[in-house]
Amino acid sequence: MKILVTGGAGFIASNLTRRLLAAGHRVVAIDNFFLGKRRHLTPFLGDPNYTFIEQDLLDLPALNQVFAEQQPQRVWHFAANSDISFGTKFTDFDLKGGTLVTYNVLEAMRLSGCKQLLFSSSGAVYGEPTVHPTPEDYGPMLPISLYAASKLACEGLVSAYAHSFDIQVWLFRFGNIIGPNSTHGVIPDFLGRLMDDPSHLRILGDGTQAKPYVHVEDCLDGMEFAQGHSSQVLNYYNLAVPDRTTVNQIADWAVAALGIAPETCPRDYTGGPRGWRGDVPYVNLDITKIHRLGWGPRMNSDAAVQRAVLEIAAQLKAERAEGGA
Amino acid sequence: MKILVTGGAGFIASNLTRRLLAAGHRVVAIDNFFLGKRRHLTPFLGDPNYTFIEQDLLDLPALNQVFAEQQPQRVWHFAANSDISFGTKFTDFDLKGGTLVTYNVLEAMRLSGCKQLLFSSSGAVYGEPTVHPTPEDYGPMLPISLYAASKLACEGLVSAYAHSFDIQVWLFRFGNIIGPNSTHGVIPDFLGRLMDDPSHLRILGDGTQAKPYVHVEDCLDGMEFAQGHSSQVLNYYNLAVPDRTTVNQIADWAVAALGIAPETCPRDYTGGPRGWRGDVPYVNLDITKIHRLGWGPRMNSDAAVQRAVLEIAAQLKAERAEGGA
Repeated sequence: MKILVTGGAGFIASNLTRRLLAAGHRVVAIDNFFLGKRRHLTPFLGDPNYTFIEQDLLDLPALNQVFAEQQPQRVWHFAANSDISFGTKFTDFDLKGGTLVTYNVLEAMRLSGCKQLLFSSSGAVYGEPTVHPTPEDYGPMLPISLYAASKLACEGLVSAYAHSFDIQVWLFRFGNIIGPNSTHGVIPDFLGRLMDDPSHLRILGDGTQAKPYVHVEDCLDGMEFAQGHSSQVLNYYNLAVPDRTTVNQIADWAVAALGIAPETCPRDYTGGPRGWRGDVPYVNLDITKIHRLGWGPRMNSDAAVQRAVLEIAAQLKAERAEGGA
Repeated sequence: MKILVTGGAGFIASNLTRRLLAAGHRVVAIDNFFLGKRRHLTPFLGDPNYTFIEQDLLDLPALNQVFAEQQPQRVWHFAANSDISFGTKFTDFDLKGGTLVTYNVLEAMRLSGCKQLLFSSSGAVYGEPTVHPTPEDYGPMLPISLYAASKLACEGLVSAYAHSFDIQVWLFRFGNIIGPNSTHGVIPDFLGRLMDDPSHLRILGDGTQAKPYVHVEDCLDGMEFAQGHSSQVLNYYNLAVPDRTTVNQIADWAVAALGIAPETCPRDYTGGPRGWRGDVPYVNLDITKIHRLGWGPRMNSDAAVQRAVLEIAAQLKAERAEGGA
């Protein structure tokens, strides 16, 4: 099958590409390198089943041309801003990079006759829910960040296109996805800062924020499973793990992974329950629905974090060795 | 108080303007006359407390200048596409006229320090709910039209701005609002077509679609009451009536209001349960939350429709008399 992947040089999509090519699919990846990294494409560039197109998804005529020429049968849409705190500084960042881009992808699908979409939303669409674990039918959906507002807007567009134009959709509300090639987030942040200066570690908030961390391999496994095992016009699932890991625990493992003696690395807390305005400090997504479909993650949150810390530490070391060479 | 009203030449805002001026407020109304009508402004043009500005809300720099010059203390934001079926024909119609316009209004508020917003959303954000009556905390919110997708996107933006930038918001999910100055909808449609040709009446769908029709005076009364009696950062209410009126019943009253003998006016049904793709044929919004606050509508759905049919028939006759003069 010919599959188009947006955000193709980004974190999750670059992990997906490896899996899709290994499964024998043809992959057309699109990225504008705003957040994506050229090095994430390197492993695929010689593969005859792989096509990379450098393109800004905000350019709808150009995107329409890509779809007309490539005629993909399915889209995995990952392109988005992935840093929630950006949206407070630049208020049109998520509107353009999330909402308008998703409209353009849907419109290019409609005009070219592409009928299947996997879309990555976020548990942030629930705002600060009062029900834990939070199920898919939780309401009201009142986001507290512009990032989450954009994900909610994208969900609405995806749902309306599904019902108006017969595009079949699998929509996933992610926990925190982690693993190799991640471009930002608490794990690369901690590791990067500790590699720069192992004498202390600054922690946003009070360190007790607790989230379900999902390894990217489990994330992609769950998406593929749900796509293969559900067939409504609009299929939607929380995709997370049953437990949570605190920021303090992640700090412990990051310090250990770099061989730093904990007593030599005091922590500076910025304080308060949130890492930043718009941060939801406690996230607990109910994954009963995807469990009932027959799928569960192989790694719990702690196991995913421990693995990702080692993977990302190895990547950062290799990058710094190259950069210094 | 100085109050800015968007969509100022539109249906609900023009009814609001009369009430605000009568209550001694200063009103700054903005409209681009895309859907709004110049005749809706005529009653206010000599009033020293009334300022009208012809401006497209998609032009953010111009909108920022309006806010900087006028320094409104509160915004009632009504500007939007109000015809759900438009969105299927022009897929960027609601995205631009709803989502992007609402972002611009919020951004202009943020930059000018305006801190209070009343926002008109729609019960359509619930998609096709399985719970009736549908309460405010219903989920999942999976809209089936691009109109509803845009309202959901606007809700997300409004919620994120409330939490990120301390803008206090009163958000209302309307039933079908009807009354004088309405620019479209089943009542002016039926009356207009019957005045053109009283020999038959075309009805979209099978005529059994049933919605809660709210008279615009009750709508504005409920909004004012909720604004005065709730003080969260984000306050949200369904604003509807406890009963519903069918399209067939509205047709009966429209025929009667024009003095047409029913037996001389057969009905042509386009058939099917929906008026158009994206139409939600049965709407029943739970209004317990605003009831608990202490407010209820004076007119039920049937009473609102009967009154609005007479009001709109009188307006259409006057307009046609003028047009023919």
